[in-house]
Amino acid sequence: VRKRLLDFVTEVTTPGGSGYVTPSERVAVFDDDGTLWPEKPRAQGMFALRRLHSLAGNHPEWRTRMPYAAALELGSKYLQEATDEEVFQLVAAAYAGRTQDAFRQDVREFFATARHPRFDRPYTQLVYGPMRELISHLKANGFRVFISTTGSTDLVRVLAEDLYGIPADDVLGSSVVSTLREEDGRLVLRRLATVHGLNDGALKPLAIDLHVGRRPILAVGNVNSGGDVHMLRYSQQPGVPSLQVLIRHDDFEREYAYEEPDGASVKAANANGWLLVSMRYDWLRIFGAE
Amino acid sequence: VRKRLLDFVTEVTTPGGSGYVTPSERVAVFDDDGTLWPEKPRAQGMFALRRLHSLAGNHPEWRTRMPYAAALELGSKYLQEATDEEVFQLVAAAYAGRTQDAFRQDVREFFATARHPRFDRPYTQLVYGPMRELISHLKANGFRVFISTTGSTDLVRVLAEDLYGIPADDVLGSSVVSTLREEDGRLVLRRLATVHGLNDGALKPLAIDLHVGRRPILAVGNVNSGGDVHMLRYSQQPGVPSLQVLIRHDDFEREYAYEEPDGASVKAANANGWLLVSMRYDWLRIFGAE
Repeated sequence: VRKRLLDFVTEVTTPGGSGYVTPSERVAVFDDDGTLWPEKPRAQGMFALRRLHSLAGNHPEWRTRMPYAAALELGSKYLQEATDEEVFQLVAAAYAGRTQDAFRQDVREFFATARHPRFDRPYTQLVYGPMRELISHLKANGFRVFISTTGSTDLVRVLAEDLYGIPADDVLGSSVVSTLREEDGRLVLRRLATVHGLNDGALKPLAIDLHVGRRPILAVGNVNSGGDVHMLRYSQQPGVPSLQVLIRHDDFEREYAYEEPDGASVKAANANGWLLVSMRYDWLRIFGAE
Repeated sequence: VRKRLLDFVTEVTTPGGSGYVTPSERVAVFDDDGTLWPEKPRAQGMFALRRLHSLAGNHPEWRTRMPYAAALELGSKYLQEATDEEVFQLVAAAYAGRTQDAFRQDVREFFATARHPRFDRPYTQLVYGPMRELISHLKANGFRVFISTTGSTDLVRVLAEDLYGIPADDVLGSSVVSTLREEDGRLVLRRLATVHGLNDGALKPLAIDLHVGRRPILAVGNVNSGGDVHMLRYSQQPGVPSLQVLIRHDDFEREYAYEEPDGASVKAANANGWLLVSMRYDWLRIFGAE
């Protein structure tokens, strides 16, 4: 696995070689949850949960309506199994009415102290070591590295610089609708509960085109819901060297073990020649801080 | 003018100074048409016009419907006075059905040979010299520089690296809706005629927040329709050093001379302490290649 990754980078960066790609076309995209750090439970769900609890008194309807009722009652157990759409709806509802400036501050404060329920350490120490290494290697070789997350753009981009060395504006994800308002003589953006779009599946290539304007030549995702299949396929085109990487969660001791019921991602990997990575057998270490 | 710009950059980059801003917060945004190069006639309008003419035979309805009829009949004279919305609608309609990959190639080919009708030189040689100098100075001082254009994102980003040294993904603008389709076993994005959003006025701060995720500390626009007022106001916030620059087109000999009927941009500049720049009196040269 390691050799194939390194060979690909060497191929596209060797001037005069048949697979040479100019620096401005060296675009890599990484999924976030489950690809760069654990997705069980979703960190953004835990972030939403704290505020949902503190606001629940003003929202009696949450006690009976899904997904709020399940989140409030079951907490991280629910967030372990909830869909991306449900989790993002919790974020949208919990932070509706907040300004974007305040939201970013909320993210900083939450992740300064919050700890993962199973691994009992800060989320910020749970970045997968091999992925951090790969991103550094790509950047050292002239790649622009983007994150394409189904989670909240606003949340991930506050953390991306510290966690992965990726600037805030190189994060693509899901967002809510905001309104521009004049308050106390200055312009502020306030979040609404309305989900603007969920960056998943077939929408990932559309968002990459809209934001980046180039086809990636390297795309990295993970097995969970098939949400990265379109993105990986989009990065493959005839006549241009490219690499697709799909990570399997098959390490129940050091991380988690789960598969897709229909196996769609692995089938697509086999059909299209993607690189399958086993967390159990291919990774010497899981987390960066070990 | 020059001194105030240089002083601002020195202020925010001097470690330990009261106005110091960390590199990751040094975000600058520039409007494009009329701020970085001439907006009369809109270059993207000329780009649309060529294809409108070649497709007009298949679209008899364009002969009677606005803005197509005016564009086909009056050409660059119409594009000199048309609104941003009308011009972008021409781009949307002319390139509907095209793949994004082909569209980008179309842009490259058009601008490789097209010449400005009055200045009779390639559009690519009409970048304002002082603006190119300012962008270089900002980048040398750790700024991330973004373009926020009311024109087509897809068009501007193909040119931005060569014209301004700004990467494709640092361009924000107007876009059309695309569809993801499987054709000949690969995924392509095809453009629809539907306008996804016009990046103007109050939508500029929203797009900056969505794409960049930070408030700019430097914003540069020009006097024409008031379309940059919200963006400049958004870059001002209490307690953070910032600078807003508004360019006046008052040089009918070397470029063009025009004002807003209601003078809204200049009024906002005076009310908020923005830096007004006269092309006629403050710029030694207009275009980069002089």
